[in-house]
Amino acid sequence: MVQDRETLLKSRLMTTSRIETIVDGIFAISMTLLVLSLEVPTLPSPVTDLTIQNYLWGILPNFYVYALSFFLLAVFWRINHVQFHRIKKADNALIWINVIWLMLVALVPFSTSLVGDYGNLQTASLFFNINMFFIAILTFVNWYYAANHHLLDRKLSPEFYKKSLRLNLVFPLVAVIAIVLSFVSPSWSTLAYILVIPLKRVNELV
Amino acid sequence: MVQDRETLLKSRLMTTSRIETIVDGIFAISMTLLVLSLEVPTLPSPVTDLTIQNYLWGILPNFYVYALSFFLLAVFWRINHVQFHRIKKADNALIWINVIWLMLVALVPFSTSLVGDYGNLQTASLFFNINMFFIAILTFVNWYYAANHHLLDRKLSPEFYKKSLRLNLVFPLVAVIAIVLSFVSPSWSTLAYILVIPLKRVNELV
Amino acid sequence: MVQDRETLLKSRLMTTSRIETIVDGIFAISMTLLVLSLEVPTLPSPVTDLTIQNYLWGILPNFYVYALSFFLLAVFWRINHVQFHRIKKADNALIWINVIWLMLVALVPFSTSLVGDYGNLQTASLFFNINMFFIAILTFVNWYYAANHHLLDRKLSPEFYKKSLRLNLVFPLVAVIAIVLSFVSPSWSTLAYILVIPLKRVNELV
Amino acid sequence: MVQDRETLLKSRLMTTSRIETIVDGIFAISMTLLVLSLEVPTLPSPVTDLTIQNYLWGILPNFYVYALSFFLLAVFWRINHVQFHRIKKADNALIWINVIWLMLVALVPFSTSLVGDYGNLQTASLFFNINMFFIAILTFVNWYYAANHHLLDRKLSPEFYKKSLRLNLVFPLVAVIAIVLSFVSPSWSTLAYILVIPLKRVNELV
Repeated sequence: MVQDRETLLKSRLMTTSRIETIVDGIFAISMTLLVLSLEVPTLPSPVTDLTIQNYLWGILPNFYVYALSFFLLAVFWRINHVQFHRIKKADNALIWINVIWLMLVALVPFSTSLVGDYGNLQTASLFFNINMFFIAILTFVNWYYAANHHLLDRKLSPEFYKKSLRLNLVFPLVAVIAIVLSFVSPSWSTLAYILVIPLKRVNELV
Repeated sequence: MVQDRETLLKSRLMTTSRIETIVDGIFAISMTLLVLSLEVPTLPSPVTDLTIQNYLWGILPNFYVYALSFFLLAVFWRINHVQFHRIKKADNALIWINVIWLMLVALVPFSTSLVGDYGNLQTASLFFNINMFFIAILTFVNWYYAANHHLLDRKLSPEFYKKSLRLNLVFPLVAVIAIVLSFVSPSWSTLAYILVIPLKRVNELV
Repeated sequence: MVQDRETLLKSRLMTTSRIETIVDGIFAISMTLLVLSLEVPTLPSPVTDLTIQNYLWGILPNFYVYALSFFLLAVFWRINHVQFHRIKKADNALIWINVIWLMLVALVPFSTSLVGDYGNLQTASLFFNINMFFIAILTFVNWYYAANHHLLDRKLSPEFYKKSLRLNLVFPLVAVIAIVLSFVSPSWSTLAYILVIPLKRVNELV
Repeated sequence: MVQDRETLLKSRLMTTSRIETIVDGIFAISMTLLVLSLEVPTLPSPVTDLTIQNYLWGILPNFYVYALSFFLLAVFWRINHVQFHRIKKADNALIWINVIWLMLVALVPFSTSLVGDYGNLQTASLFFNINMFFIAILTFVNWYYAANHHLLDRKLSPEFYKKSLRLNLVFPLVAVIAIVLSFVSPSWSTLAYILVIPLKRVNELV
């Protein structure tokens, strides 16, 4: 009886290792599926070197968004990685926060394709940036929830936690800037994510 | 001689770790491939913001089914996860139950595409719901078989097991409701899966 | 100096764990990619229930081959699994045997598509069966090579090894039967793989 | 306070296990996605054995490039594997070297498709070879950086390190030869990679 109760508790507060497995899996696949936004089309004959050069120039925006999305997903994966280095247990809510987060991550190959093909249009650009915004917000929520439900490593000092929480707001903010820029210049809005580069160094603190 | 017999027995009742690896892999990939049901088409020129907005509105059902399937697969993955937390050994039959189960899981991106594109038609809706029904049934069979072939952790009390078995019937039942609803209103039938939300909390008991 | 030599030896005879990782990965992905042979096409308007029913009936052979390939890949994965349960070390040649083997495994989604669409034609049927034959042969070679280069667990008795080697020839033989049947009746040739079902039980001995 | 500083240091010099996980994942997926460069098209009716034979002959270059890319990715994966056998810690820069490297690896299914379809043209051939060149260079940089930032296993002797560094330059050199050959004969340029075969044995030394 006591044992059942104990195993029950164990399952309610499961260890985080298998969440990390599915996170790693979905990230690896999403990052690799980004390449599907770069298609090799059946070019109209006769195909010459010039045809291919023109085609490759034409999909230059797609290469740019491919690299950008790959980089951003790597940053998110890294932040999650560092967070779960500190998160020692997971309850049900934390698992579902991560599932919704992964749902948005797995959507990135679609937004990448959309902005790669039609990045000069506001709607496509907005879609991509809003996608990134929600991923960033859920990254923040993951950390916030874990901290406020005693799922973190106990050794962390409160000052450390407060600092890390503030840092976690940088990425959502950058996404908001990108969203605003979508209204000014859709094509250039994604340059806002350059602001993440200093962040990624800082995120070691998370 | 004795050693051979011993290694033979070991392989007949293998540990469950490598099943879990392939389960995690196929789930991560199936969940990520769901995004392929959302395509970025070559829209007819001239492409304006309005064209893209109309297109995105048009694939709203696809977004809904994407989120639904992602969520349902996450639930199934979680149940399997909790089950294998209790299953300590695997025999041949258990492995093949899981292989058939995975075969149905890997089919979900197809049913998702089908119901995303033609969800207003009975046949598409039925296909999706029957797919989910069989996944749910095999989830039940997995637990039932393991329990009746002494593959579970010995600490579990019989009352606990009976309770968990009943809980495992909730998901197949919900799928049956969705199937019945397919005959009434194909488009709305999948709303039946909302009934799974209370279940997923309860499934910690499995 | 001695240490360098030692680390060098270690890398020459590496442990098998990371081979198993890439094997698990490529199998999980190949098995899931099989679903891409089932496409949801843009059906000509107006799309009715009848259109979809006709379409689904039309791709019935594809469903059959999907299930067959999924099952065969699961069998191969399982055999590899059991083999590496006995293989304790890996040298360079063993790694490359496995790489070529994986190259043929990753080809299966293509042969599956081909035989799903054109299984009534000899060429398609032959291609699929030859693909399976080479996978089966390399499965045999993997075990044969490991045994003859002292990479196996030392506890195995010679009788045990000889028996297992003979069993490993069953699958290539079945594939040969399927190849021969391709010349008689392409559509039914793949039924030969039913003969593998008793084998998979026996393969625990491998 | 001291503890925070300590956990902070730990995260700055993280262990390499989770990098290896994402590397394994992206390689497994990229290698399997190569198969998408081999499509089963809707052939014009009536489809006979001859139609399929002609089609298969027609995509022979695609089969060749499929096998080549699979082999090259396996070599790169293996080198990375051996490198991380020696690399004991990872700092931020090393992680980002690996992310950029993976970005180029995940691009290989695209270059493979391109060179499979248009390998007789210089531009396609160049694109593929330049892709390989950058992967090779980053493989070198990974090893060079790790060695010069004290991230390696301390037991390695300096002579050993120098030798291994020179060996790591062989692959970039081979890629340069392939690039030069692209200007002479695009179709045959990829044969240069045969020169890697002796290398892969030597790379155990890395």
